[in-house]
Amino acid sequence: MKNRQIVLERRPAGTPKPSDFRLVETLVAEPDEGEVLCRTIYLSLDPYMRGRMNEGRSYARPVEVGQVMVAGTVGQVVDSRYPGFSPGDFVLAYDGWQEYGISRGSTLRKLDPTQAPISTALGVLGMPGLTAYVGLLDIGRAKSGETIVVSAAAGAVGSAVGQIAKIKGCRAVGVAGSRDKCDYVERELGFDACVSYREGNLPVSLEAACPGGIDVYFDNVGGDVLTAALRLINVNARIAICGLISQYNAAELPAGPNLAPILVNRATMRGFIVSDHVDRAPEFLAEATRWVRDGRLKYREDVVDGLQNAPGAFLGLFEGRNVGKLLVRVAPDPTR
Amino acid sequence: MKNRQIVLERRPAGTPKPSDFRLVETLVAEPDEGEVLCRTIYLSLDPYMRGRMNEGRSYARPVEVGQVMVAGTVGQVVDSRYPGFSPGDFVLAYDGWQEYGISRGSTLRKLDPTQAPISTALGVLGMPGLTAYVGLLDIGRAKSGETIVVSAAAGAVGSAVGQIAKIKGCRAVGVAGSRDKCDYVERELGFDACVSYREGNLPVSLEAACPGGIDVYFDNVGGDVLTAALRLINVNARIAICGLISQYNAAELPAGPNLAPILVNRATMRGFIVSDHVDRAPEFLAEATRWVRDGRLKYREDVVDGLQNAPGAFLGLFEGRNVGKLLVRVAPDPTR
Repeated sequence: MKNRQIVLERRPAGTPKPSDFRLVETLVAEPDEGEVLCRTIYLSLDPYMRGRMNEGRSYARPVEVGQVMVAGTVGQVVDSRYPGFSPGDFVLAYDGWQEYGISRGSTLRKLDPTQAPISTALGVLGMPGLTAYVGLLDIGRAKSGETIVVSAAAGAVGSAVGQIAKIKGCRAVGVAGSRDKCDYVERELGFDACVSYREGNLPVSLEAACPGGIDVYFDNVGGDVLTAALRLINVNARIAICGLISQYNAAELPAGPNLAPILVNRATMRGFIVSDHVDRAPEFLAEATRWVRDGRLKYREDVVDGLQNAPGAFLGLFEGRNVGKLLVRVAPDPTR
Repeated sequence: MKNRQIVLERRPAGTPKPSDFRLVETLVAEPDEGEVLCRTIYLSLDPYMRGRMNEGRSYARPVEVGQVMVAGTVGQVVDSRYPGFSPGDFVLAYDGWQEYGISRGSTLRKLDPTQAPISTALGVLGMPGLTAYVGLLDIGRAKSGETIVVSAAAGAVGSAVGQIAKIKGCRAVGVAGSRDKCDYVERELGFDACVSYREGNLPVSLEAACPGGIDVYFDNVGGDVLTAALRLINVNARIAICGLISQYNAAELPAGPNLAPILVNRATMRGFIVSDHVDRAPEFLAEATRWVRDGRLKYREDVVDGLQNAPGAFLGLFEGRNVGKLLVRVAPDPTR
């Protein structure tokens, strides 16, 4: 049985190109004792993967040149040598950009397709959703009545941040890359306001959207949006640094924002990585599953068909091309 | 009785000049019921006063043009209409840049000259000492075995930060503006190392001084020193933003450091203002008084004689001219 994989062909300097990836064909291996072979249905594309393409350890080891690109995946068990998993089971795995993957059974989570669409385990009920939950509530400590601002508000994480903020009684303001995205964020997701950073004067329009200042800024992008948000923070504001996508493709790291607002407002800025907070997953899952079912936590998926289209779709993340969770459908989803 | 005062003559644009201040003579007023008239012996010069010279509210109201410049003072009671204070008592007040001041009695703290030199109430046992204590232990949460780095290490706050860090079992590394200051910091204050930011390559020398990375960075300066320190932070590092003196005279706020290290290391950066933490003063005073008496917490005072020399001495703060606590002796200290 053949396995198509996408491997890192070379480390990009600056913005990655399609030629930094390569599609290869190998044969599917057999699982050893304790392992499970899965066929990937969906693979998740996320900005953090850009960091894995660089040399040198960041918070996780890089993908080596010639190795399969990493990714969270939702798949179906083909062969199992781990108790409790049988062929046909749907599972959340971390099998990367390939059609088939072998995992240690202990790392898998079984999915119940009657509870929620299996693809949501990569999005609103998966890592991006947990990121939003932990970043807003634990890192940002958002409280009812406060104003929270989130960048990349139409993305997988940002869209959940604002909706959870609304559920918790906050005023939610988004920043996104187009008026269309802002319309989606305001009308469909129910944010109180959304500001496009590509139109008009961001500092001015963000200030207009936050007449009471900013209590929590959840940042996915860095750069000018972070600078504009810092100008508006209130005393004791919290800034959760979740991502800095504006600089992931920079050949040299750009300067950052002036930090006077942090001092003057006794603000707290904290970086976080969701994998440090998996202990929060059970509570998150219980709450978020209910919110999704009740229609209080909406999501969109941007599904690209075909493994071979993963590199192009991934590059689009850095151009703001997608809305909602970006997924690649590697094989048909039998639950739909 | 005449009272000489130094008032703000005009708001400086960028670096203040001596002509931004003016020496005026008025008559000493009489205290009302509940008030105390003091003759200033020492007044404290601190970087935060630069912010008070600007228009617009920062964390405290600005000094108005024509008003006496603010300052913590140590003086002697001349006339009291507040119970518990009598002529001759030594007190800590906030009477500003003038020879005589009237305070509400409830705001004064009586000083016992047999416990410690009265001038220390403006330095190692006063606001700068409390700033060091709170910033290192509460904001920075320094723990035994960790490496702490402090900028402006030869200054009133920085010198206390490193020594308290040593008392608490940390490795203490200073950054200062000359090799002479570094020698003082290493040899007299007992820091493990001190790096001059004006000599050699700061990122390289700071890295050499911190072979285990940085767990707590206590920043008084911002700018290049902050950038160099962020490059070296460890996972879960804390950055206490106490001051940003490198930019206090900037006409336009400069860019800040790139924040990727905050994200990658899940670090926490927190600004603080000591006046939010006066509840910690009793514990600080009890501990620090003991440390000073035991010779574990050393200090230097840089005493300038004469109220008329306050503006020049203040401007020197921004050029790194002084070592230790900068004070103006406005009248003879009868305890020495």
